[in-house]
Amino acid sequence: MTKPTLAAPSPDATPELLYLLHGDPSELASMLAELRAADVAEALHRLRQRTPKAAAPVLAALPFDLAVQVLDEPELDGRAELLAELARREPTTCIALIEAMSADQQADVFREWRGILPDAERARVLRGLSPDTQRGLELLLRYPPSSAGGIMTTEFVTVPPHWTVETTLQHVSQVGGAKETVYAIYVVDGQKRDEAGGLAAGEPVGRLVHVVSLRELLIADRTQQVADVGDRRVPITVRPHTDREDVARLISKYNLLAVPVVDADGLLVGIVTVDDVIDAIVAEQTEDVQKFGGMEALDVPYTEIGFWAMIKKRAGWLTALFLGEMLTATAMGHFEEEIARAVVLALFVPLIISSGGNSGSQATSLIIRALALGELRLRDWWWVARREIPSGLTLGAILGAVGATRILVWQAFGWYEYGAHYLLVALTVGLSLVGVVLFGSLTGSMLPFALRRLGFDPASASAPFVATLVDVTGLIIYFTVAATVLRGTLL
Amino acid sequence: MTKPTLAAPSPDATPELLYLLHGDPSELASMLAELRAADVAEALHRLRQRTPKAAAPVLAALPFDLAVQVLDEPELDGRAELLAELARREPTTCIALIEAMSADQQADVFREWRGILPDAERARVLRGLSPDTQRGLELLLRYPPSSAGGIMTTEFVTVPPHWTVETTLQHVSQVGGAKETVYAIYVVDGQKRDEAGGLAAGEPVGRLVHVVSLRELLIADRTQQVADVGDRRVPITVRPHTDREDVARLISKYNLLAVPVVDADGLLVGIVTVDDVIDAIVAEQTEDVQKFGGMEALDVPYTEIGFWAMIKKRAGWLTALFLGEMLTATAMGHFEEEIARAVVLALFVPLIISSGGNSGSQATSLIIRALALGELRLRDWWWVARREIPSGLTLGAILGAVGATRILVWQAFGWYEYGAHYLLVALTVGLSLVGVVLFGSLTGSMLPFALRRLGFDPASASAPFVATLVDVTGLIIYFTVAATVLRGTLL
Repeated sequence: MTKPTLAAPSPDATPELLYLLHGDPSELASMLAELRAADVAEALHRLRQRTPKAAAPVLAALPFDLAVQVLDEPELDGRAELLAELARREPTTCIALIEAMSADQQADVFREWRGILPDAERARVLRGLSPDTQRGLELLLRYPPSSAGGIMTTEFVTVPPHWTVETTLQHVSQVGGAKETVYAIYVVDGQKRDEAGGLAAGEPVGRLVHVVSLRELLIADRTQQVADVGDRRVPITVRPHTDREDVARLISKYNLLAVPVVDADGLLVGIVTVDDVIDAIVAEQTEDVQKFGGMEALDVPYTEIGFWAMIKKRAGWLTALFLGEMLTATAMGHFEEEIARAVVLALFVPLIISSGGNSGSQATSLIIRALALGELRLRDWWWVARREIPSGLTLGAILGAVGATRILVWQAFGWYEYGAHYLLVALTVGLSLVGVVLFGSLTGSMLPFALRRLGFDPASASAPFVATLVDVTGLIIYFTVAATVLRGTLL
Repeated sequence: MTKPTLAAPSPDATPELLYLLHGDPSELASMLAELRAADVAEALHRLRQRTPKAAAPVLAALPFDLAVQVLDEPELDGRAELLAELARREPTTCIALIEAMSADQQADVFREWRGILPDAERARVLRGLSPDTQRGLELLLRYPPSSAGGIMTTEFVTVPPHWTVETTLQHVSQVGGAKETVYAIYVVDGQKRDEAGGLAAGEPVGRLVHVVSLRELLIADRTQQVADVGDRRVPITVRPHTDREDVARLISKYNLLAVPVVDADGLLVGIVTVDDVIDAIVAEQTEDVQKFGGMEALDVPYTEIGFWAMIKKRAGWLTALFLGEMLTATAMGHFEEEIARAVVLALFVPLIISSGGNSGSQATSLIIRALALGELRLRDWWWVARREIPSGLTLGAILGAVGATRILVWQAFGWYEYGAHYLLVALTVGLSLVGVVLFGSLTGSMLPFALRRLGFDPASASAPFVATLVDVTGLIIYFTVAATVLRGTLL
């Protein structure tokens, strides 16, 4: 019998199975070495999910360059835990790997380590890094992770303005392999130190005077000065504290591959690349959907977050909404006599208030997105209000007609007995729906404006938030209409 | 007095003001010529909003290359209308501009023209284009706009495998200016025609054998064959019918600048670039938020869509939800006797059912995102269910405790009189909340799985949809608990 040969694992193979079969981290590592970094990251993640302690030795056994690439993947869930495990088992390997990672990812790891690795162990790793890396980390950790400074990379190509295209291209050929991107070249005045002279990450390299794309360089005359090539307008830049969402909007609007980050003095401190921006857009999107669902953003994948951490994120808003919704009980209390006299009124309470909530949820989702995309600004609230009033009236009239018809049909076919005044009941329900849907559309559309005006994120205007706001008023509208229409008959 | 000099307009200037001041399209055009294409697009859009017919002559008066760049911006809202206007006024200019646009954007314009320009006029423009462009458009229009084929570009650099790095770099220098991206070079076997030989957009150029990045080329030995440079793994590709969301995931996962689109025979037909993918991600995000808000996706900016078109998108789901919510009236009807006997029960109906809806909305938003990000798959439904049961019980217990306490406090301080059996009322409300929140969390988390299983988009599971599902059952849970707890006392 011949020994079965092991095929290269597909991205869908289960490495933990192979690992448990053989028990040899280096064997698994050599198989993973055939895959792309993103796929190795996924395999390590799956391995860690089943046998948490197994992943660190495999990572250590990977070819060094591949291990660094894998660690540079923000998709590697649990990267901080994996490196913490490695820091305990093989501190030297851990330090070497971190030293080789890109500066923005190093900063990410140290940020995440705050809750995972004791201060003393973190300090030990930090002391093992080169002085430049230590200084760079200190600078980068000053910026919040959702700012340009927090996602910027500090590996990019800079050249002085007087270089020729030819010299610049040769320079790119030599240093290009080590930089995160070579497709934009930054022309910098008064460069502080030589490329190889070890400037710390995040330290300004000089004043940014021009940005030239590699494409522009390639099609330019080789003897031209690099400062004269391409678009001579002032380059588009962001500041370290610019929100990552604004960076994303800029990159997407101008179809950039990277945007330079400059400080208040115009000194270049880093660049944000398009792939970091995509990750940021996807993360923002997750946050927005979760907030719109009526909870705090998880910040961690659903599959990764601990039970109590998740309960905490959900219970806060749920309780706040519950407290707000308690006002409905108070409102209903005021109408207890009316309900006792005409129980039929109680039947339509859920139908009517939910219609207000639904129309409000629609309006809110429309306005949140229009504000996020910059289609609308704060000052447009009046334009929106004037549009939502006829919308709410029209939608309310549609639902009101359906609701009144339903009562008349049920009564006519004898499916339910609404009493002698069924026509007035139908009228009450129909008119209330017009009022409630109008109020829902208006509240739902104005809430994101109000939040932004007060300095909050308009995306905090969740569907349940709007529903809660509308429910109490919906009840008051309903019972007021009822009191007017049914006075002298049922009430 | 000296004549005031006109400063170059900032992106925030109002071009329509300048235009109305001077009335000369070429004057405005020459001022816009200083701006970046994306900013010119925005200025034209604002101009069109105020004076619809003014934008076309300004576009025609722009420098030709800039006008083409502006038209290549998908951010130019109302581009199809603008070009339709131009087609009527200056058909020759319109045809020349469209001929110069990139193929994917040409296809977009013809897609949007379907509802705007009569067939005869569309055909006249089409006949004016070169035969290659006509053939290319026909090919591209076959793919749905949300597929890789629908967003791919057909301007990219291809080289035969036997070329050296030096020859390839020279080739890029020569043709690079005209291609949408030069940062990935596609090595193609059995190339069908010469680069200049006029292959139609979307027609396969040959079999894709290798992809090499410009960075890899630049750092490689100049005498090497291009087929031997860089990563020798089989290139990552997509098919023309691949969903744009999947393309985005791939580009984001592997940090690509572009992904090649190949047909069933491995022939290269186009590439999707990262900036098109960002636009696609943002568009999907808008769709998802609007769907989650409980309506059909608008597909057009809120500020652009006509009143009745918007009503149509909103009324459909609103009415469907209303019809579903009518079941609450039926359910309440069944409990009419209980309500008549204990009106106090009616007071808590909105509070209890809204808590179910809110917890359901939270769970749905969590699962929709986890499914969209690939953190969860269909087969994980049971894992999620086993997690949401304790979550729902815990959250329900929290709200139940708050709700019961509220009743006891109000009673103790005499703020409201719940009658002799207030302890039992508090118990009913508390227990019902546990049941309703548990049911809400479970329904909310399972609904996206159910939708995907049935072949629908899980993102169709909107907050109002979940609330409607939960409301009816919430009522049944509440009145069943009440019937059990209050039997012999209030009921």
